[in-house]
Amino acid sequence: MKNCVFCKIVNGTELASVVYSDDKVMAFMDICPVNLGHVLVIPKVHAKYMSELDEEIGAHLFKITMRIAEAVRKSGVKCEGINLFVADGEAAFQDVFHFHLHIIPRFKGDGFELKFGPNNLLRPSRKKLDKIANDIRKSLKK
Amino acid sequence: MKNCVFCKIVNGTELASVVYSDDKVMAFMDICPVNLGHVLVIPKVHAKYMSELDEEIGAHLFKITMRIAEAVRKSGVKCEGINLFVADGEAAFQDVFHFHLHIIPRFKGDGFELKFGPNNLLRPSRKKLDKIANDIRKSLKK
Repeated sequence: MKNCVFCKIVNGTELASVVYSDDKVMAFMDICPVNLGHVLVIPKVHAKYMSELDEEIGAHLFKITMRIAEAVRKSGVKCEGINLFVADGEAAFQDVFHFHLHIIPRFKGDGFELKFGPNNLLRPSRKKLDKIANDIRKSLKK
Repeated sequence: MKNCVFCKIVNGTELASVVYSDDKVMAFMDICPVNLGHVLVIPKVHAKYMSELDEEIGAHLFKITMRIAEAVRKSGVKCEGINLFVADGEAAFQDVFHFHLHIIPRFKGDGFELKFGPNNLLRPSRKKLDKIANDIRKSLKK
């Protein structure tokens, strides 16, 4: 994709601090880290959304993510925990439209917070949860 | 694990609204959803942290996560986007100490927000990012 900054990183026409690269995936430092050591993991093939990502590449990407998360913990950056985060779609805070998974080193007092909306105060009944689970199950591809 | 609520769900001794189950992983509705349709995906084998999770199970878990995320989008709950979230370690907001991945349906105006700490205002130099990338690379298991 001509105008995709992550495709440019894959092609070497845009600078990045690379942590890992193989034939399917690549990982590099986020230039706006939540904390130092914040890594992005991407598929090399352009996939705008998770729905466009090949399952086998996704599985491989997660395996590599697990290894990198462990390496971040051992690397010397301040890291007492790790958040993984994917933003899939604009309503979910996606900003670069090439699928990417965030590996965010965390430590107590780093100021990172999640704020939940009013829906989080609902406590759906078991009946309601069962209904939604059933609807999702019916939509699952076999 | 005797006192682990997610192991109890796996064993059927604790109630859950199950979305998916196979020999390695299971998915069910979060009882405190950020938004309706919030699903948790777990390995059946107890793994407290991501570092204890077998890589092949992790890869499979992510493949199933991709399918469920797509199913959530199609299920009828309000969903314009999806966040995936993993909290690995107490400092990263882990509350149940059996690895789990959140699939969170999102929509504009749902009130969910990320708040970043002061480190996010730093703009590390390329030299600094290269140094950290190098440290992480050296810590990566082959």
